[in-house]
Amino acid sequence: MPRLAALSTRLPLLRTAVAAASAIPRRRIVCLLPKRAFSLAPTARAAAAAQALTSAQYPTLRRNPDFKTLNDNDVAFFKSAIKSPAGVITADTPDELEPFNQDWMRRFKGQSTLVLRPSSTSEVSAVLKYCNDNNIAVVPQGGNTGLVGGSVPVHDEVVLSLQNMNQIREFDPVSGILTCDAGCVLEVLDNHLAQKGFIMPLDLGAKGSCQIGGNVATNAGGLRLLRYGSLHGTVLSMEVVMADGRIVECGKPLRKDNTGFDLKQLFIGSEGTLGVITSVSILTPRRSRAVNVAMLGVSSFDHLMEVFKQAKMDLNEILSAFEFFDRTCLNLVKRHIPNVRAPFDADTRFYVLIETSGSNKDHDDDKLSTFLEHVMTEGMVEDGALAQDATQAAGMWNIRETITESLAKEGGNYKYDLSVPVAQLYDVVEEMQKQLAERGLYAADGSATGAVKHVVGFGHMGDGNLHLNLTSTGWTTELTQAIEPPLYKSIQRRGGSISAEHGVGLMKAPYLSYSKSADFIDLMKSMKKLFDPKGILNPYKYFPPS
Amino acid sequence: MPRLAALSTRLPLLRTAVAAASAIPRRRIVCLLPKRAFSLAPTARAAAAAQALTSAQYPTLRRNPDFKTLNDNDVAFFKSAIKSPAGVITADTPDELEPFNQDWMRRFKGQSTLVLRPSSTSEVSAVLKYCNDNNIAVVPQGGNTGLVGGSVPVHDEVVLSLQNMNQIREFDPVSGILTCDAGCVLEVLDNHLAQKGFIMPLDLGAKGSCQIGGNVATNAGGLRLLRYGSLHGTVLSMEVVMADGRIVECGKPLRKDNTGFDLKQLFIGSEGTLGVITSVSILTPRRSRAVNVAMLGVSSFDHLMEVFKQAKMDLNEILSAFEFFDRTCLNLVKRHIPNVRAPFDADTRFYVLIETSGSNKDHDDDKLSTFLEHVMTEGMVEDGALAQDATQAAGMWNIRETITESLAKEGGNYKYDLSVPVAQLYDVVEEMQKQLAERGLYAADGSATGAVKHVVGFGHMGDGNLHLNLTSTGWTTELTQAIEPPLYKSIQRRGGSISAEHGVGLMKAPYLSYSKSADFIDLMKSMKKLFDPKGILNPYKYFPPS
Repeated sequence: MPRLAALSTRLPLLRTAVAAASAIPRRRIVCLLPKRAFSLAPTARAAAAAQALTSAQYPTLRRNPDFKTLNDNDVAFFKSAIKSPAGVITADTPDELEPFNQDWMRRFKGQSTLVLRPSSTSEVSAVLKYCNDNNIAVVPQGGNTGLVGGSVPVHDEVVLSLQNMNQIREFDPVSGILTCDAGCVLEVLDNHLAQKGFIMPLDLGAKGSCQIGGNVATNAGGLRLLRYGSLHGTVLSMEVVMADGRIVECGKPLRKDNTGFDLKQLFIGSEGTLGVITSVSILTPRRSRAVNVAMLGVSSFDHLMEVFKQAKMDLNEILSAFEFFDRTCLNLVKRHIPNVRAPFDADTRFYVLIETSGSNKDHDDDKLSTFLEHVMTEGMVEDGALAQDATQAAGMWNIRETITESLAKEGGNYKYDLSVPVAQLYDVVEEMQKQLAERGLYAADGSATGAVKHVVGFGHMGDGNLHLNLTSTGWTTELTQAIEPPLYKSIQRRGGSISAEHGVGLMKAPYLSYSKSADFIDLMKSMKKLFDPKGILNPYKYFPPS
Repeated sequence: MPRLAALSTRLPLLRTAVAAASAIPRRRIVCLLPKRAFSLAPTARAAAAAQALTSAQYPTLRRNPDFKTLNDNDVAFFKSAIKSPAGVITADTPDELEPFNQDWMRRFKGQSTLVLRPSSTSEVSAVLKYCNDNNIAVVPQGGNTGLVGGSVPVHDEVVLSLQNMNQIREFDPVSGILTCDAGCVLEVLDNHLAQKGFIMPLDLGAKGSCQIGGNVATNAGGLRLLRYGSLHGTVLSMEVVMADGRIVECGKPLRKDNTGFDLKQLFIGSEGTLGVITSVSILTPRRSRAVNVAMLGVSSFDHLMEVFKQAKMDLNEILSAFEFFDRTCLNLVKRHIPNVRAPFDADTRFYVLIETSGSNKDHDDDKLSTFLEHVMTEGMVEDGALAQDATQAAGMWNIRETITESLAKEGGNYKYDLSVPVAQLYDVVEEMQKQLAERGLYAADGSATGAVKHVVGFGHMGDGNLHLNLTSTGWTTELTQAIEPPLYKSIQRRGGSISAEHGVGLMKAPYLSYSKSADFIDLMKSMKKLFDPKGILNPYKYFPPS
């Protein structure tokens, strides 16, 4: 097993690298957002237009004149309906209003003059009933960490923030079922569970800010989906306030309940367009005692698929992450992130980060050794390193998680979150490179002769989720036109999805037809009409503009 | 560790017992149903009333006069719309019609004069369009293995059987995604996957007859839910024919797709009332290389919960079943099932069957030893046995799976499929025993002084799913009244569900309000109206009679 020996000789290198990178905790880079000025993926254009109103950027999204403009009586009602004095923010304090009007990427900016922060379900109900009776448009908002402009107003919609509904209602250590308010921050819940030996079944970069209600409303994916599945499987029940103020309990905190339509599922991923989630019950697994992380260099995408298949076979029940990125991603991280070095020298086309988590460290080590022996002796992998401790593991995760930040430092960013059958994942990247090169917009050798400097691919290989990113000298209509229609058509042709996990929001609403048929969209519209006849909930988004 | 030694000394006993029980393959008892005359749970009354029409049993469910009575022109249309000559069964061949009119328990009997067996989605579409245009009521039918009377007609509804739509469309060994017609038999799919090293994420006693479309339409639970989760998480997409014949693709065979409402979820568990599922894409896990089975005797329910918690801790990612049954269940199995003996002699109040499955036999054995050492040295368990081979494992499963058959041999059966918070699972059984004893209907010492001979509990402890069964000298209105209102009220009070996995169908429709609020049921009705305005799909069921 000469390869395995090679692998182990790399470990000292890794130790040095990681010691230098030192205390960057895993997945913390994004956590502090949106409180810090640093943003993960501001594009040159977005940065320049930091103060541009969404309504100016999207002039066709005209304000719906059916919606009432707020007056003093309305504000007085809301002040009476919400008990907490800090529960109502008005135009009297514009600095306090601003963070609710603006997304953390600083790409979208609404013009709301009123933020409501109810502390109970009955307050949410009173607010929505009034809004519905008076045709007042509302944007439900969780942690406001979304990537598609779904959680901030377009015009003067009232912002309904769930942040004051942040109580853990119950945790049952026998079943692992957690019930909590929608406004609980994901990381707070995870820390709470950690003390009891359990873990949230989802994990995101934004965990320090995002709220469970928003996670559920947007059907967040993230890093644990490979292991614990989607929220459609783990969310057991929820409490929802309908547009007209009715409070509806959708299911119970039970693992099984087979009575009636599973209506809660409709709210998962509907981005606040059907109702406002006020509490959630979720099934949480036991926290794993042992975690291992390895990084491998692979010379071709075919080999990468072989490695993935082998991982599913050898690591099976303990496989908890299988993330990939291409050579350019690694090079950009090395260029822009201080003190980061690859854990080995081999320069390969692809890199993969594998995480296992299980209940027995010895067993997991043994499984991982078997797997590494397989992939190295059979030539699927060129080189690799296995983290020897938590710091080294954090160093490896740091490479994966600073890709977005590194790309942002290269200039303007075009970012796509795509789902395609795993075998075709990287074809999408190569096809884009070829198309742009043919138009003279990109030089395949990496020399910056065109408007596009880099076309890279990375993402959750285990979920068939590709993050296709392009860096450019700026945003132009010509470039957008060169990228988007061909890309979306390609995704449609491949039977993929134009949004794997980020959702629809404002950004992807016009392109929904690339992923969903006209009949399907018609059904969606009928459903919206049924749940929210006046269309007050999160208007201007999610549905293709008519 | 004296207890562990005791455990191992029991193994020779087990070997003898299992050798005698010999070749009863695991979970095969029910598989051949409904082809065999033997039925799992015929009650004395149901058996006696084998020929009684549902319409006679439920006189309040009057035929809806808006539905057209079929004439020769209609039959001629269907014969032209369905290409296969065997695709249309009429009253000319009553023997062929009968199995489609009757459920396998022989409890329900409809009066349909027409069974349609289309071979393609476009044929299903043509059939439904015609039925909708002509107000013809339709009962979609899969393998007809349901337990609540949902899959057979009440009056003269046309039966739309999916059994001729049985092609596997695609399997991707990289992602593990299987796409197939709705009429594929579950066991056929599982065998197909076994050859490729994968496994269906669900398993039922009825696997030899039930169809994946029916499984999905009824949101079947079963034996693998503890490990692989519910169909809401594993079904990735489906093709559905709406009541008016429109074919709607709900999602794509992708692990992630976050565009638009997840409408496929509505069809999961809607029992054919919203549309007809014609194909399904489902995520299938790798088949585990190693399987272990153990049976333990436990003296109290508190200890049982401790054992469950310990199993989740020590066995964690390899735990694949945690089934429990009480002492009476075991005694009845020993009485009625030939050549079955308990794997150990200890007479305890409860027994638990634990299964692990993982990718490495040595590791799993090791984890199981650690777990057994914990529970035995800490006194949670009185005695136990660990299967040494597949035959012994099958013998243990055989005990669990012949409980229903054994109960049936005791006389009339009242069967309830309940979901309650795990900690309260057995309280429901004891409460029922107490209530019936107080009314003189049951003798707590087991002597058959009252109408009720046994009140037993067993089920999927890991899912909080209790099968509460009563055996009686017969079905009487007095006894039904003594059991059902108090039971359903108790379940409602405990925040449980009156149907954990069997669904609603005809039997539980009147009791839906014990599990769902009036507002929720109103929303369900609006949804039904939206999807099936004329109400032609599976009428008289699922919704509380108005």
